[in-house]
Amino acid sequence: MIGFEQIKKICRTSPSKIVLLVIDGLGGLPHPETGKTELESATSPNLNRIAKDSICGLIDPVSPGITPGSAPGHLAIFGYDPLQYHIGRGVLEALGIDVELKAGDIAARGNFCTVDDEGIITHRRAGRISTDKNAVLCRLLDDIGIEGVEISVLPVKEHRFVLILRGKGLSPELGDSDPQQIGLSPKKIEALSPQAERSAEIANEFVSRAASLLQGKTPANMVLLRGFSGRPHIPSVSEIYKLKPAAVATYPMYRGLARLVGMKVLPAGESITDQLNSLHRHYAKYDFFFIHFKSTDARGEDGDFQAKVQAIEELDKALPSLLGLEPDVLIVTGDHSTPATLAMHSWHPVPFMLKSKWCRPDNVTEFSERACLAGGMGRFPATEIMPLAMANALKLDKFDA
Amino acid sequence: MIGFEQIKKICRTSPSKIVLLVIDGLGGLPHPETGKTELESATSPNLNRIAKDSICGLIDPVSPGITPGSAPGHLAIFGYDPLQYHIGRGVLEALGIDVELKAGDIAARGNFCTVDDEGIITHRRAGRISTDKNAVLCRLLDDIGIEGVEISVLPVKEHRFVLILRGKGLSPELGDSDPQQIGLSPKKIEALSPQAERSAEIANEFVSRAASLLQGKTPANMVLLRGFSGRPHIPSVSEIYKLKPAAVATYPMYRGLARLVGMKVLPAGESITDQLNSLHRHYAKYDFFFIHFKSTDARGEDGDFQAKVQAIEELDKALPSLLGLEPDVLIVTGDHSTPATLAMHSWHPVPFMLKSKWCRPDNVTEFSERACLAGGMGRFPATEIMPLAMANALKLDKFDA
Repeated sequence: MIGFEQIKKICRTSPSKIVLLVIDGLGGLPHPETGKTELESATSPNLNRIAKDSICGLIDPVSPGITPGSAPGHLAIFGYDPLQYHIGRGVLEALGIDVELKAGDIAARGNFCTVDDEGIITHRRAGRISTDKNAVLCRLLDDIGIEGVEISVLPVKEHRFVLILRGKGLSPELGDSDPQQIGLSPKKIEALSPQAERSAEIANEFVSRAASLLQGKTPANMVLLRGFSGRPHIPSVSEIYKLKPAAVATYPMYRGLARLVGMKVLPAGESITDQLNSLHRHYAKYDFFFIHFKSTDARGEDGDFQAKVQAIEELDKALPSLLGLEPDVLIVTGDHSTPATLAMHSWHPVPFMLKSKWCRPDNVTEFSERACLAGGMGRFPATEIMPLAMANALKLDKFDA
Repeated sequence: MIGFEQIKKICRTSPSKIVLLVIDGLGGLPHPETGKTELESATSPNLNRIAKDSICGLIDPVSPGITPGSAPGHLAIFGYDPLQYHIGRGVLEALGIDVELKAGDIAARGNFCTVDDEGIITHRRAGRISTDKNAVLCRLLDDIGIEGVEISVLPVKEHRFVLILRGKGLSPELGDSDPQQIGLSPKKIEALSPQAERSAEIANEFVSRAASLLQGKTPANMVLLRGFSGRPHIPSVSEIYKLKPAAVATYPMYRGLARLVGMKVLPAGESITDQLNSLHRHYAKYDFFFIHFKSTDARGEDGDFQAKVQAIEELDKALPSLLGLEPDVLIVTGDHSTPATLAMHSWHPVPFMLKSKWCRPDNVTEFSERACLAGGMGRFPATEIMPLAMANALKLDKFDA
C-alpha cells in the first residue's frame, strides 16, 4: 500500500467535503433464532438508500482474525496501520478522561488494590471501590511532590486512575508494577532502557509514597501501575492529507483519539441529533469530519441484540440531516464488530460503504454484512479508506506521469 | 507477494506463448443517463467470449485510491511495484519521442517559456509556441557545447523539449530550474547530493548559454528544466522470468517503457490490425507479447463517452485475428481507468481476464467492471499478473519440495 511519504506528494486541498461516520461495533453475527444479524434485523431505509448509491465492501481493521481494541480500530480507519502505530494503555486511559497530553508526558494506568500485612496483593481492584472514594484518594496522591517532575493523579471509574508525570527527560520505557495476579507483591518498576533509569526511580518513589499515604485505608491501601506510555509520534491527518479535519464524538476516548491525529474536536452534545446539529454549524469551516456513534458498541457489549438493533434504527432515523448536507464523499463503516451474541469486540470484518459522484456503484442495495460481501470494494484493509476517500473527493493528483 | 529473487529460481523456458493485451484507460464509470459504463455500453462479442473461458477480476495498478500515470500503470502490469520502481519525468519524456537512453545518461523535461526584462517568468509555456518553431529553437540549443558532456536538445510538442546529457560521472540528483509558477525567476539548479555537483554546474551552464541564445526571441526567450532523471535500474523481464519478450505498440512512450524492461520492440504500424499483423509475423520468434491499444485512453481523456465505446468496439472487431493464434495464455486488461465522465485517468480498478487451458474459469460471461467483480481473481494488485501468466503458461516450477 502507498505510504505517507508518497501519498503526501499527491494530496491537494480543494473545497470538497468528506464525512466519515463511524458506527462503533457495527458488525454483528446472526441471531440464533432469526438467522439475521443486528444490521439485517434493523429497519434502516436510509442506510440502505446510501448503499444503493455507494461502493460497498467489508473492512479488516487490524488483520484478518484479529479483534481490534477501540484505538487500533480507529487508527486504521484514519489511515494509520495499527500494527505499526501503537497507543499505550496509559495514554489511552488519559484520553478516556479528556486529559490532553503534551509531548514528553508519560501516563500510566493505575488500580487501587488491597495488600495484606506482608504486602501481598489480596484484591487487584480493591473490591471495586466507588468512583467517589476513588476521587478522594486521587486528591491525596495528587499532592505527592517529587523534585523535577509534576505529578497528576486523576480518577477514572471505580478503582481505576491515571498517573501522569510531566518533566524534562522522562522516558516511558518502564515495566509494570502490576503483576496482574493476586498472591504476589507489586513489582518494582524497572527501566527497560538506560535512559529510563531516572523515570523508574521517580515511578518507584511515587509508589512508595502512595503506599505510605494509603496505609490503613483498606481496602484501597496500595496502587498498581501498568502501561507506562508517552504520546505516540503520529503524523497528523492535515500533515499527510492536507485536510482540515474535525471530530464530533460524545465519548472522551474518541475525542482523544481524534485530537491525537490532529483533528479539531467540536462540541458534540449527547445524542446523534446533537452531533449532526454540530456538524451543520461547523460544516463550512472544515473539509473532513469524523462522526462517532457509540451506542451500537455499548449495546453489543451488553449482549443485548434487540437494543443494538434499536441503536442502529435510532442512527438511521437521524441520517436525513446528514444526507441533507450532500457531502462530496460520505463513508459509513465501523471500527470493529461487536456481535451481541458474543457480547464483546470481535474479529469479523465490518460493513463499509462510500458514496460519491465518482464511486462506481456496485449492485449492493442493502447495508449489511452479507450484502457488502458482493460489493465493489470486496474485503479490504481499513487503512485503504483514507486514500479512497481522498480519491473520491478529487483531492489526489495522479501518481507519476 | 513473491519477490524477483524467489520467482527467478522457479521460472523455466518452454514453448508456450503468453499474449498480454493492454487496453489503455480501459476502466470506466456509468453514463449518467444509461447507468452503463463504456465497456458495458459497447457491443463486444469477442471480449465477452474470452471472458466466458477466462478467470476474471479487477486490478489495482498502484494501490487502492491511487490514480496511476501511464508509466506506473504499465510497470505494475509488467510485474514491477510502481511504489518501488520509479521512472523520472525526464526519462519518460525521452521515451515518449523514441529516444534510447544509455545507462549513465540523464534526461530532463524542458519547457520554452517567456521572461520579462528582469528575468521574471511571465508565461511558463511561451504561449504554447508551435512544434515547428520549437524544432528550430531546439536545433539552436542542440549546438551548445560544454566540455566533457554530449548535449542533445530534442523537440517534443508545442513548448516541450527533452534535454539529454551524456558523459562520464553524471548524476541525475538535481533540482528543477522550473519554479512551476509565474512571477518568479527560474531557479538555479541545485545538486541534491555531493556527487551531482558537476552535473549541476553543467546544467546551469546549459541554462545560461540557452538564455543568451534565446535573448530577444520572445515569446520563447528562456528555458525551464525539471525532472532530471537517469535510466532506472530495473531487472529485465527476460532476466526475471526467462522469457523472450516483444512489444507491439503504436505510441513511442509505450515502446520506450517496453524497451526499458528489456522487451524487443516490433514494428506496429498504425492500427490495431497492423499491430496484430505484426504479432502474426513475429509470433514464432518470441514467447511473450505485449500489445498496447491506445485509443480507449485518448477518447476517455477527451471526455467522449461514445468515442470510447467505439474504440472498444474497433478493438473487439480485430480480436479474431489474435484468437486465431490460440496463445497458451491470453490476458486482457488495462493500465488504469479513464472514465469519459471524468475525462482523466482515475483510481478505479481495471477489468482483467486471463484465458488459458488451465485457468479455472469462473461464472463471468461478460467483460465489464461489474461482471469482473464476481470473477475468480476478485480484486487484486496488478503486480500479481506476471506470476499468474507464468503459472498458466506452465513456465513455473513448484515452490520448494
